[in-house]
Amino acid sequence: MILAEGHFGPQSSKTANACLRYIPNEVVAVLDSTQTGRTAQDILGLGGAIPVVGSFAEGMALAPTALLIGIAPAGGQFPEAWRAIVNQSLRAGLDVWSGLHTLLGDDAEFHALATKHGAVIRDLRRPPAMLDVGSGRVRELDATIVLTVGTDCNIGKMTTQLQVQQAVQARGPRVNFAATGQTGILVAGRGIAVDAVVADFIAGAAEALTMEAAHDAEIVLVEGQGSLLHPAYSGVTLGLMHGSLPHAMVLCAQPTRVSINRNAWVPIPPLTDVITLYERMMAPLRPSPVIAVALNTFDLDDEAAQQAIARAQEETGLPVTDPVRFDPSPIAEAIAAFHARRKLVVPS
Amino acid sequence: MILAEGHFGPQSSKTANACLRYIPNEVVAVLDSTQTGRTAQDILGLGGAIPVVGSFAEGMALAPTALLIGIAPAGGQFPEAWRAIVNQSLRAGLDVWSGLHTLLGDDAEFHALATKHGAVIRDLRRPPAMLDVGSGRVRELDATIVLTVGTDCNIGKMTTQLQVQQAVQARGPRVNFAATGQTGILVAGRGIAVDAVVADFIAGAAEALTMEAAHDAEIVLVEGQGSLLHPAYSGVTLGLMHGSLPHAMVLCAQPTRVSINRNAWVPIPPLTDVITLYERMMAPLRPSPVIAVALNTFDLDDEAAQQAIARAQEETGLPVTDPVRFDPSPIAEAIAAFHARRKLVVPS
Repeated sequence: MILAEGHFGPQSSKTANACLRYIPNEVVAVLDSTQTGRTAQDILGLGGAIPVVGSFAEGMALAPTALLIGIAPAGGQFPEAWRAIVNQSLRAGLDVWSGLHTLLGDDAEFHALATKHGAVIRDLRRPPAMLDVGSGRVRELDATIVLTVGTDCNIGKMTTQLQVQQAVQARGPRVNFAATGQTGILVAGRGIAVDAVVADFIAGAAEALTMEAAHDAEIVLVEGQGSLLHPAYSGVTLGLMHGSLPHAMVLCAQPTRVSINRNAWVPIPPLTDVITLYERMMAPLRPSPVIAVALNTFDLDDEAAQQAIARAQEETGLPVTDPVRFDPSPIAEAIAAFHARRKLVVPS
Repeated sequence: MILAEGHFGPQSSKTANACLRYIPNEVVAVLDSTQTGRTAQDILGLGGAIPVVGSFAEGMALAPTALLIGIAPAGGQFPEAWRAIVNQSLRAGLDVWSGLHTLLGDDAEFHALATKHGAVIRDLRRPPAMLDVGSGRVRELDATIVLTVGTDCNIGKMTTQLQVQQAVQARGPRVNFAATGQTGILVAGRGIAVDAVVADFIAGAAEALTMEAAHDAEIVLVEGQGSLLHPAYSGVTLGLMHGSLPHAMVLCAQPTRVSINRNAWVPIPPLTDVITLYERMMAPLRPSPVIAVALNTFDLDDEAAQQAIARAQEETGLPVTDPVRFDPSPIAEAIAAFHARRKLVVPS
């Protein structure tokens, strides 16, 4: 059962939506009393008949085994208004999964209730106990590393990797997705939330998770975070870039977004300028071209979406698609071709 | 009493050295049994007759009130080899000051000893309990904000600000130093260690400390951290840039350093390229020129130092000096002149 009270929607419940898209078989209900009686499909256009329920009791009738906090306030702190529902879940023996910065397992009341009722609290953002600082260890890998980067947050960096993963793999190479945020970790079952580690260890965490994902893969698709342009999160973005040391990048953008979300004072430059910025920041450590563009066109009609894709192709000279709405092949093909060229030059 | 066991030296005990340079009246001894009998002056060329002692007992004879951990292993973890001396200090009722990532106040044994013996453990890197994410609040300030940036870590970003502070103030404007690292906090008596906050809050922390320092100043000199080129710490650097939103930057470099410290695989580009990289990364949020260069020439003789300064001036067209070895005026003058020009355009 996913808690999305008051916020279940295409742009406002990122964690919930990713579960409904990628692991729908693990979801029995979404809890949002403001939208009772509708289905996930009604609201998101995906997730099928999974119902939106109006109360904890109604959800319990569907026999959930865990409560997932499916929405995240900016800053990721725990809203005290949710304490009652978390308590109720733990008392009912449900595990509680959370991607908030506030670690629920460290809350004395939650901890006591979980212990008493045999429930497990899984904090997706809890950093590993031991991390090293970044040191370029990723350079020892044979695998081709591809990182998604963005003009802004919440624009498709995780989704793009998940959408193209199968299509790349269908072209031959073994592919792993390396999760770097709470939602990606939920979908992939492993990873490190790089935005939740102590600042000095961002690159070290990115290194560690890239090394792990490369263990049994020829291509590692690293989930990007934030944006070099984002006034709050650019540090996480750069640390992730310098820790994962991508050989190539895929830029994610939303044609209708003209400024950084909740920061209208930061206009988003033209795509070619953003591409140049990312390439310049990688160059001193590992030259890494942007090889494709993923557009998030959810708020455009089909014709406008196709036009936006054509414009971006013309502007950047790169393969462009919306990998959710249309065929992800152009991006998958760019990644597979990049990998094949790289292997010709550097045989493993 | 400063603990620098086995590592007291010009390049290996940054925290100790800053105390000896800026707050020598608060230091009675340096503890390093490998260099007993020498003075700070012998080893650093500063700190006068402050003695190096070979044992805790010898130091206690000089009546210290606190033990400062004066060296930092990479990664900032607590070396268990130091447990005995910290225990000994707390048992003797000395406060313990530490800038390590490992928070000594959270260690059960240290905490118990401190409580029992009335000692205080001050963890300089302990993040504030509550931080917001960055949101560009600094834009509301009238003050001129100047950030030091670097080609690498441990190259003079804190020292440059502390060396020029008085010289800028002598030209009229009220100046505050905004500390962002454990050593700066020790010298200034306030600040936030931005490398120790949760990654999502780097810019938010930089914002908070810049706002506080601007409260009673016309110019805020923000202590820089790391380098955009550093494979481990670039995220902290960019978060600090985007949180403090400097109007101008001062680049710190060491003429003899050709690659990033402990990362020989990352060559340091020419100064003009580094300047361009910093300016490009600031431009989307707040255009911010590099207005001066501070060279760290400690490992050159006087003639070579002067030549390096002349070369950097020619290469960059900017005022250049070594603000420790020579007169810091060229940098102070550049800052004061920048501030004066800015006030002509934007009267407060």
